[in-house]
Amino acid sequence: MSSFVHDDFLLRSATARRLYRDFASPAPIIDYHCHLDPRDLAADRRFENIAQLWVTGDPYKHRAMRIAGVPEHLITGAASEREKFDAWAATVPQTLGNPLHHWTALELKRYFDLDEPLTAATAQRTWDACNARLAEPGFTARGLLAQRGVACVCTSDRLLDDLSPHAQMAREGGALRVLPSLRSDDVVAVEAPVFPTWVRQLGEATGGAILDYDAFRAAVGRRLDVFGGAGCRLADHGLDDFSYVVLSDADTAGLFARRLGGGVLSTVDTVRLQSGLLRFLGAEYARRGWIMQLHLGAQRRTSSRLRRLAGPAGGYAGIGSACDVPSLIAWLDDLETEGALPRTILYPLHPADFAPLAVLAGSFVEDGVPGKIQLGPAWWFNDHAAGMRAQLEAIANYGLLAVFIGMTTDSRSLLSMARHEYFRRVLCDWLGEQAEAGAMPSDLNELGPLVHAVSSENARRYLSL
Amino acid sequence: MSSFVHDDFLLRSATARRLYRDFASPAPIIDYHCHLDPRDLAADRRFENIAQLWVTGDPYKHRAMRIAGVPEHLITGAASEREKFDAWAATVPQTLGNPLHHWTALELKRYFDLDEPLTAATAQRTWDACNARLAEPGFTARGLLAQRGVACVCTSDRLLDDLSPHAQMAREGGALRVLPSLRSDDVVAVEAPVFPTWVRQLGEATGGAILDYDAFRAAVGRRLDVFGGAGCRLADHGLDDFSYVVLSDADTAGLFARRLGGGVLSTVDTVRLQSGLLRFLGAEYARRGWIMQLHLGAQRRTSSRLRRLAGPAGGYAGIGSACDVPSLIAWLDDLETEGALPRTILYPLHPADFAPLAVLAGSFVEDGVPGKIQLGPAWWFNDHAAGMRAQLEAIANYGLLAVFIGMTTDSRSLLSMARHEYFRRVLCDWLGEQAEAGAMPSDLNELGPLVHAVSSENARRYLSL
Amino acid sequence: MSSFVHDDFLLRSATARRLYRDFASPAPIIDYHCHLDPRDLAADRRFENIAQLWVTGDPYKHRAMRIAGVPEHLITGAASEREKFDAWAATVPQTLGNPLHHWTALELKRYFDLDEPLTAATAQRTWDACNARLAEPGFTARGLLAQRGVACVCTSDRLLDDLSPHAQMAREGGALRVLPSLRSDDVVAVEAPVFPTWVRQLGEATGGAILDYDAFRAAVGRRLDVFGGAGCRLADHGLDDFSYVVLSDADTAGLFARRLGGGVLSTVDTVRLQSGLLRFLGAEYARRGWIMQLHLGAQRRTSSRLRRLAGPAGGYAGIGSACDVPSLIAWLDDLETEGALPRTILYPLHPADFAPLAVLAGSFVEDGVPGKIQLGPAWWFNDHAAGMRAQLEAIANYGLLAVFIGMTTDSRSLLSMARHEYFRRVLCDWLGEQAEAGAMPSDLNELGPLVHAVSSENARRYLSL
Repeated sequence: MSSFVHDDFLLRSATARRLYRDFASPAPIIDYHCHLDPRDLAADRRFENIAQLWVTGDPYKHRAMRIAGVPEHLITGAASEREKFDAWAATVPQTLGNPLHHWTALELKRYFDLDEPLTAATAQRTWDACNARLAEPGFTARGLLAQRGVACVCTSDRLLDDLSPHAQMAREGGALRVLPSLRSDDVVAVEAPVFPTWVRQLGEATGGAILDYDAFRAAVGRRLDVFGGAGCRLADHGLDDFSYVVLSDADTAGLFARRLGGGVLSTVDTVRLQSGLLRFLGAEYARRGWIMQLHLGAQRRTSSRLRRLAGPAGGYAGIGSACDVPSLIAWLDDLETEGALPRTILYPLHPADFAPLAVLAGSFVEDGVPGKIQLGPAWWFNDHAAGMRAQLEAIANYGLLAVFIGMTTDSRSLLSMARHEYFRRVLCDWLGEQAEAGAMPSDLNELGPLVHAVSSENARRYLSL
Repeated sequence: MSSFVHDDFLLRSATARRLYRDFASPAPIIDYHCHLDPRDLAADRRFENIAQLWVTGDPYKHRAMRIAGVPEHLITGAASEREKFDAWAATVPQTLGNPLHHWTALELKRYFDLDEPLTAATAQRTWDACNARLAEPGFTARGLLAQRGVACVCTSDRLLDDLSPHAQMAREGGALRVLPSLRSDDVVAVEAPVFPTWVRQLGEATGGAILDYDAFRAAVGRRLDVFGGAGCRLADHGLDDFSYVVLSDADTAGLFARRLGGGVLSTVDTVRLQSGLLRFLGAEYARRGWIMQLHLGAQRRTSSRLRRLAGPAGGYAGIGSACDVPSLIAWLDDLETEGALPRTILYPLHPADFAPLAVLAGSFVEDGVPGKIQLGPAWWFNDHAAGMRAQLEAIANYGLLAVFIGMTTDSRSLLSMARHEYFRRVLCDWLGEQAEAGAMPSDLNELGPLVHAVSSENARRYLSL
Repeated sequence: MSSFVHDDFLLRSATARRLYRDFASPAPIIDYHCHLDPRDLAADRRFENIAQLWVTGDPYKHRAMRIAGVPEHLITGAASEREKFDAWAATVPQTLGNPLHHWTALELKRYFDLDEPLTAATAQRTWDACNARLAEPGFTARGLLAQRGVACVCTSDRLLDDLSPHAQMAREGGALRVLPSLRSDDVVAVEAPVFPTWVRQLGEATGGAILDYDAFRAAVGRRLDVFGGAGCRLADHGLDDFSYVVLSDADTAGLFARRLGGGVLSTVDTVRLQSGLLRFLGAEYARRGWIMQLHLGAQRRTSSRLRRLAGPAGGYAGIGSACDVPSLIAWLDDLETEGALPRTILYPLHPADFAPLAVLAGSFVEDGVPGKIQLGPAWWFNDHAAGMRAQLEAIANYGLLAVFIGMTTDSRSLLSMARHEYFRRVLCDWLGEQAEAGAMPSDLNELGPLVHAVSSENARRYLSL
């Protein structure tokens, strides 16, 4: 049977094929932002079946099944793992044109050497074949990463998370580096009812009661140091509906005290306090040489019904309003004025933001630092071939492709590392197309190093690995 | 003379040509949203000349003529039908690159078998040839639809419109179904000076004075039942500048009473009252199993001068601001929470809204209902090959192309049914391109049913025809 | 050595090559909006070296160098011209995919006949070769324009600027017309601290103290007459963050008086006063038959640090929010209602604005005036092949390509005239692609005149040259 995912998958020109084979394919994978569970890696978890590894925890697949009309009990409900796998198998043929169609074929091919398309008719064979492989030695959590040549993953960890799995991986991981990175949303979630309680927990974790803003900053700083000691190089904020106002430390301290005392802040004061906290955090990242990641423009609250059924990250999120670019600029300028602007990766979810955020690469810069501000790789709903091409075009035209740090998966799934291959194929295909059109030189001595840089080398340098 | 519109028009690959010939071309046309006049169909109107059928009432053509500098008297003014036709003929060569260029060639070819491009030089011949055909038996209103294989059209009717033309078509239409669909704008046009008068007319039409919100809702419900009895399956709102706030029934009733009493509402209260009414209407549609259509983001008031000369729908509208996505989500969630969210088709006019609205397909779903929320086909100014491709890419990448209900014309012109062919050619060409690029399987057993579904079958099921 | 910029550069089809060679290439250049210094042209300036002509004053190159991490002292700092040239040379290979890569190759080829790519390794040879040519007779400011067949440039001049260089060029320029055009930002910069002082200077320049709004309007009108007498045909506004409210002349006069008296206006009143002034100015342009140009959506204030180092136009600007389309429509409608709407060219910087602004071509029109409202050519950050294609598609699909006035450089650099060639290649390539796809006739008798019109002829007519 001829395979849909063949050697030249998505590579339409001879130049693309040469670039992929010689420069992209051999480059190690650095997945600098993902949501893999570090405990799975520390425990070198083995999965009982393909549903557990691949279906039951994947909001992308859940979302597609829902659009196809699959009942929720077969998605996140009480149905068995096998029933859920079958429901997914029956949905796959309907994903034609969606990245899930490519990812599915690619992951079945790369990890399980399966060429047969997954459908209701092939579900049983696929289930059996995958499960048989999952019992083999190389199919544990660490083994799956090793299969794809993963050199480094940066997980996403909350400020009070236990970092001992990372410590264990530092001792046992061998060639695989598993570094923590900080998801800082708790620190600025001042509107959450749980915020004062969380501050108390932070105090307990850092050895002292937090009675004011100074103590809060000190306590946060101590946890940042713990993260830094564990190899953390990046922080991350999910800013769904972001705006920023310049606020003094004293005013920030005042609002913090009110909130810590249980006060409920107005919408305006919430934005003000968050602005002060974001300025504080940005400066802390800069001081530590960390990279700041901003995920902008998601709307995570859509269907209250699905939130109840599937939890807060259940795959039903939307794209919200376009980014408030003047606010973003005000924040970055505020930090730069203090000499405390960290390197920053911007991930807009709204495609209309690709251009204005890509342009910022030329607005905030630093002597000797290539690509200080980056438009990150196509994120979430945009993580498909057309979205990647749009992102590459934005970065190339509004900035410099040569300094782009390239792909990261932002995924919860171990098998998603195959998406680095997907990205590299799209990259090489795009460059090949440019070369064939005469818009770029077809000289592999020029294009090859560019492919190598974007596939892996730029990320390695940017993260000082 | 070789024809610009030949058998393989716009079909660039062998796959595209096979898909079009075998799967797209034979599928019947279901035009589920258009502005054909049901009285023309009931009367089986015959047109005296091609200008009457094709030029004098077509705002798309008027718009192009204006951009070209054609004087208004030759567009909507006192000039003769022949003069207006000639003005259009002289404009056609200037439309190169605009969908009007394709539509013109396609309609002249399909209905009149004319290959010669329309220009000032060919105006006389075209006028004569078309008018000769228009005198033939198959060129009445119904005949023109039958020529293109139209199985069903859903007209756009106001709440107080007479539905007897539809009843007549139900008796006489044979294979052609002509169903009413409700344009609900009157119901929420509370800012219109005429609103209280309109409510009185509604009361008269439904058998009782409307003195409060309960009576209003009952009266609207009675008209909805009349529409339902006449075969209506869809409602439609034109929401140029839409925002939504959650409002209780009691508050809605209070604001309604103030407005009914002749009070003028503030902008804020207008939005509040409209929100309450939209929630009421959405739930009514859901209860009846109707589909809710939302046309979002037009700015119909632009030039006061042209509004005076050409009326409120004279072809000079613009694209307004991007959609207020959080408002839209709030409305849909409100309805879903009440268990009263109808199937919904979203038609954004601003291209920046394609992605955020396509994504909502995964946010609001229903067990057993494929494609409950749909990004509709490219609408109005976006109804051209590039806009259709952008729409197909958005639906495929952010949702599932397999459940897409496909094309509708939204047109006032009987000849516009040829645009279904146009859409299907663009669809097949795009799929063919994907297949040739290795991004989709080139297996016609997979792509063929997809083409059939999107050309006609999905719409048939979605409308329960 | 085979050249990257060969005869068929960017022309992928036979149709494209024929169109370029026969219709685009011979057309004279009309650069109707640029920032060339008229004093350089009057003095027929000779440049000492290639850095002076090409690097030290070019914010596009500065921006790319900064993104690459080049230290600021090598960009706008104290480094020598040679060092700055070398820094640029070393950056060029990193611009692969950016328009600077194409522009660099094109300009070195066209003006200096250099085929060798500029890199750190070729910097010395390139420096020597270019400087040798710059000493030749044809390489003065006027000579450089003549080399590329420039027929007319419209410079950008402030209201109080000395227009004697233009007068000198009118006497000495021969075939080259150098016309002033008005950059009107000073007139509406009421929020600037210097505004009252500037009004006093305006009074001095026009022969009388300005004590009220009437006197101000009269004084502005006198300067407009001076510009008109010098051949001015266009005015221009840079509206970074534009909104408009309808305001009476009396209210405008009142706010003007307050501001002239040294009062500081609230944000709301600033917008109101600016709206009144914009209405006044638009009507003045219309009365004189001038074209109004609107540059919309830049955010010029980003990094305070770079503003300090590199000045207000130092290449670090961003793209701000999308255009407030309803405001723009309100302004145009206000002017049209008074019978005083000038022809207008819209230059949006945010790509999301291409569609809504292109559509306005059909909203405000005038009998006998083709293309009264124009979406201008791709501006600033969008001035690359992909941006040009997006612009051409927007104009063609939402308006009429046949009336498009085509390219202008908006550049400070004499060598940028090569970008007209770049634009024309992209235009011909796009038309060739359409023709090969069967979407346009491949008849050169239809496409050729279109290319000629867009390359030069439409601009010539639009400007009444």
